Amino acid sequence: MECSIARALDVVGERWSLLILRDAFYGVRRFDDFQRDLGVARNILTDRLAKLVGAGVLERIPYEQRPPRFEYKLTQKGRELLPVLLTMMHWGDRWSSDNSPPVTLTHTKCGHDTHGVLSCAHCGEELKRSELRVHPIRIAGIRLEDAVASLS
Amino acid sequence: MECSIARALDVVGERWSLLILRDAFYGVRRFDDFQRDLGVARNILTDRLAKLVGAGVLERIPYEQRPPRFEYKLTQKGRELLPVLLTMMHWGDRWSSDNSPPVTLTHTKCGHDTHGVLSCAHCGEELKRSELRVHPIRIAGIRLEDAVASLS
Repeated sequence: MECSIARALDVVGERWSLLILRDAFYGVRRFDDFQRDLGVARNILTDRLAKLVGAGVLERIPYEQRPPRFEYKLTQKGRELLPVLLTMMHWGDRWSSDNSPPVTLTHTKCGHDTHGVLSCAHCGEELKRSELRVHPIRIAGIRLEDAVASLS
Repeated sequence: MECSIARALDVVGERWSLLILRDAFYGVRRFDDFQRDLGVARNILTDRLAKLVGAGVLERIPYEQRPPRFEYKLTQKGRELLPVLLTMMHWGDRWSSDNSPPVTLTHTKCGHDTHGVLSCAHCGEELKRSELRVHPIRIAGIRLEDAVASLS
């Protein structure tokens, strides 16, 4: 599918994969720690870790020779998924039934509790739906080369 | 699972759900248009639309009485998922094998092509992994109330 969202979903479009990556950002490295934290079946975890390594978002690094043991570390490609996780976290905080976010994020540079706001890479203003246009658009399978659409 | 990312994934942690929402942002409203655009089986589409309506991110609105027909529109809760989709899109653009983004985003406020940068809600600076702390952390199932962790 010719869409970067679809391409991203090929890698992270599955619940366990993103939770594994969340844990990796929290510093979890080893199979047994992922397994204990997520409570996921070992065969599923094995499968998802292999897929994430295959997609180049985690790398598998030996940390013991006898017996051979490996840990999993985020690559640069994996680390760049942080904005995806942070925007999900903020949405979950805003729209979950209870009002206390389970995790607080502090921005050490300014010293304040924070969440991520999506800003324009060019002018730095917050990106608002009504001020964005996409081009070209594709509706019902038809790619409209000359169309420019605002977002609904 | 006590985590806002996990809560978000309860709603959008599945490939088709996010692609349906992407299409909804592009202005697709009707079952047959979603179906044609996504090429998804009708029973899967019916199921995912019902789940998204149940989760309150889409609403189902009658547009014809006889026969009764409905269209699907993003709610405020759904519209607030735009940053999740835009961060995924940018990641897909950066890391896909070919270098031409299939879709370009223009910020009409400044007039430039853009992508989203995640900025601090307090100071407006770009959020960098090394300048974020999470609290409390939970490693391998244990919630560490007093621990403050930087991100890996």
